[in-house]
Amino acid sequence: MTNDKLATLKTRLAEIADLHATGALLGWDQETYMPDGGAAERAEQLATVEKIAHEKFTADEIGVLLDDLRSLADQLDYESDDAALLRVTRRDYEKSRKLPTELVVELSRATSHGVEAWKKARATNDFAHFRPFLEKIVELTIQKGEALGYEENIYDALLDDFEPDMRVSQINPIFQQVKDATVPLVEKVAAQPPIDDSFLHQYFDPQKQWEFGLAVVKDYGYDFTRGRQDKSAHPFTTSFGVGDVRITTRILDDYLPSALFSSLHEAGHGLYEQGIAPSLARTPLRDGTSLGVHESQSRMWENVVGRSLGFWQHYYPQLQKTFPEQLGNVPLTDFYRAINKVTPSLIRVEADEVTYNLHIFIRFELEQDLLAGRLKVADLPDAWNEKYRAYLGITPDSDANGVMQDIHWSSGLIGYFPTYSLGNILSMQFFNKMIADNPAIPAEIAEGKFDTVLGWLRENIHRHGRKFTPTELIARVTGGGIDAQPYINYITEKYSAIYG
Amino acid sequence: MTNDKLATLKTRLAEIADLHATGALLGWDQETYMPDGGAAERAEQLATVEKIAHEKFTADEIGVLLDDLRSLADQLDYESDDAALLRVTRRDYEKSRKLPTELVVELSRATSHGVEAWKKARATNDFAHFRPFLEKIVELTIQKGEALGYEENIYDALLDDFEPDMRVSQINPIFQQVKDATVPLVEKVAAQPPIDDSFLHQYFDPQKQWEFGLAVVKDYGYDFTRGRQDKSAHPFTTSFGVGDVRITTRILDDYLPSALFSSLHEAGHGLYEQGIAPSLARTPLRDGTSLGVHESQSRMWENVVGRSLGFWQHYYPQLQKTFPEQLGNVPLTDFYRAINKVTPSLIRVEADEVTYNLHIFIRFELEQDLLAGRLKVADLPDAWNEKYRAYLGITPDSDANGVMQDIHWSSGLIGYFPTYSLGNILSMQFFNKMIADNPAIPAEIAEGKFDTVLGWLRENIHRHGRKFTPTELIARVTGGGIDAQPYINYITEKYSAIYG
Repeated sequence: MTNDKLATLKTRLAEIADLHATGALLGWDQETYMPDGGAAERAEQLATVEKIAHEKFTADEIGVLLDDLRSLADQLDYESDDAALLRVTRRDYEKSRKLPTELVVELSRATSHGVEAWKKARATNDFAHFRPFLEKIVELTIQKGEALGYEENIYDALLDDFEPDMRVSQINPIFQQVKDATVPLVEKVAAQPPIDDSFLHQYFDPQKQWEFGLAVVKDYGYDFTRGRQDKSAHPFTTSFGVGDVRITTRILDDYLPSALFSSLHEAGHGLYEQGIAPSLARTPLRDGTSLGVHESQSRMWENVVGRSLGFWQHYYPQLQKTFPEQLGNVPLTDFYRAINKVTPSLIRVEADEVTYNLHIFIRFELEQDLLAGRLKVADLPDAWNEKYRAYLGITPDSDANGVMQDIHWSSGLIGYFPTYSLGNILSMQFFNKMIADNPAIPAEIAEGKFDTVLGWLRENIHRHGRKFTPTELIARVTGGGIDAQPYINYITEKYSAIYG
Repeated sequence: MTNDKLATLKTRLAEIADLHATGALLGWDQETYMPDGGAAERAEQLATVEKIAHEKFTADEIGVLLDDLRSLADQLDYESDDAALLRVTRRDYEKSRKLPTELVVELSRATSHGVEAWKKARATNDFAHFRPFLEKIVELTIQKGEALGYEENIYDALLDDFEPDMRVSQINPIFQQVKDATVPLVEKVAAQPPIDDSFLHQYFDPQKQWEFGLAVVKDYGYDFTRGRQDKSAHPFTTSFGVGDVRITTRILDDYLPSALFSSLHEAGHGLYEQGIAPSLARTPLRDGTSLGVHESQSRMWENVVGRSLGFWQHYYPQLQKTFPEQLGNVPLTDFYRAINKVTPSLIRVEADEVTYNLHIFIRFELEQDLLAGRLKVADLPDAWNEKYRAYLGITPDSDANGVMQDIHWSSGLIGYFPTYSLGNILSMQFFNKMIADNPAIPAEIAEGKFDTVLGWLRENIHRHGRKFTPTELIARVTGGGIDAQPYINYITEKYSAIYG
């Protein structure tokens, strides 16, 4: 009987997983290949699929099955797939039941339209066009936060979607610690002569950029029989199952680092998704445990590995061969310094490792103000520009390069940005443990070999999917909790060396 | 009250339309961009989406709503959107209720796996690999036919999915008439010196082929803000709404006509879908009324327009400019004769207009034998080869170029092939009426102008979607029923002129 019920629950969850995967495909296609004319109907399709997934998951039957399976859940080994399935499903179920289906549908539709409006508004630098869409999204997000409930801060209710277990009150001291270390570092760097990176700002054939990035991603261990790379306005990773994990990139023909490092970044996300145990396919466990942990993977492959001197000792000769006119006479050390140049800049995704977190803190603070009602969407561009002046000493030249640079808010991802900085912090906690376990890794990276890195990540992080909460996973790997010090040490040491 | 019920019905139908569109996207992606590793999970996703669509459409609630709306349906103008919605939905509903959900799911899964098996088996010329998959599909298709019921022939039950109102007993005399006219024509052609088409079998740069085809499709009036073209192993058209209609092509770098005419063919399908009235969006009426009528559009744009002398009077100079080395010294008349060369060949999609229908008759007869249990899947390759010898005087060099050349059976499309020949027949009935209404059209085609053609098709055929049955539509347009004579006259006259 119990086994029958578990089988029934798994069948229901598998169908819901199919619907989520289908929704992900609708979203991927919208960002990659969909013609403009498809937008209105696509919004309805996404809303319908998400509505049905929500209805099916919040059905009374699921609750009854979970109740009936409670004693089984208690008997199972905590680390078993089935035990994890039951506890994660219960957590998701209780949360989803708090959300009215109409709100889910309204949010889906509002964000589908929001993304299209954002694309248009960004292209024409017309925040006024985007404003009503964003107002609607913020309003619905506040409704969502209220429906989910919270103890301390409405932001916590939304953050939980992306970073379970985490609260604003926990994040604030961690971010403060990073800020306290970053600001003097940026000041010291500013006192040094600026690094010349003009050779990165030349014409680089897009097809060659594409191929070089793909080759590195392949070396990383990305499995192209279970994935692919396409182009989109904003690079992202999505997954339709353990057998189909896709990344996107965007190519700037006049700036080399953009496509390359976005490919390495998304590959980090994709490797996580590809590494999830096949036994978790078509279950709610087939996903990263949190976006912070996800970002720890993307930032590790992009920066800790991909912007290291060792990495370029191996790859720079190949890159020079690919672009002999542009880089043939540029020595490795100059190139390495240029791709690690620290400089306050407007665009988050192009920011260096040191200033990057300042971009995040700005968004995190603005989101809190929006959700608390202290800031109106209409005043957002001014507030944005004000913070860029205060934190980075620069003023956006346009809303397109300012408040509208990121896709997140248009697609309803409010409460998401802090996970980027949490990911930076976690990346060094994980990386240090990996090196402690395998001291040969830096030498391997300098030979373009990544199997030990990927093997360690698969074993310790990837394969578990959502079986363990981020807190549990971090404790399993590091023996402790989240800790900003290793990341602070990393940027301090790396950039002291670069800037002398 | 009645209006509320109509609104409720429309909301339900809109969600079901969203699910069908979503299923179409899952299928499109499977054929265009999906990595191999995604196949297993994709099969489940398709099965889940089709299952839910079937469950939602066959729900008792839909029947109750239709019953409650019966008196409204009787009051409405027969030609109104709402009247058509109610009568087409009732017809679809009564039919769908006959199909058990499990069978729908099993068929979806079997055909998803079937397509993957077919791809592999075709690539390796290994019918034995494909056989068990096809056996399963034939078995399930027979179950489907029995569940749907029929008066004369199980084939009729399946044909109805593709060509409503049509029966084998109606098709047989029509096809016999075409056969009786075709066989002597093929014999007469065989007695003539063969046309030299060797210049078509050279290397043609794929990118240039792609661009030339796209340019013509654009001239036809295809709206690329509401559609796109991609590549797939087997060209097809699919639609996710009136705002997103996609076609695919395949490019052979050593044979020019393949990509070009497949693009023109699929554009014909796509123009039909793009021409459906926006008021029919997200309803069961947003589709072609039958595959025969659909094929009348694709074959008209591909052949009646695209292989006409007038068309090439306009386009040939451009084609010569695109491929000066290959075609610069080939006169128009030689080119025109070459693309219309009649010769018994192995591959249906590459066949000329005269022998094309013989390929169809072979498949139609084999399908009837399979469904009636007179032919086993294991014996299909031999039976196929036997018929190719009998009808076309040639023997396939491999099963890949024989029984496995078409995707249809692997994807469950059994009962579909006769619609290709019905489409050929209808294309000339419609074309003749169009010319009678607009005698200037042939001269316009010779100037590369297609708005009168497209306007007439939109007005008389496209915009109606499924509002009228094929029988009704043919009667509205031609004043009569299906009639093979115009098509027979067309091929007789055209090929008498070409072959003298």
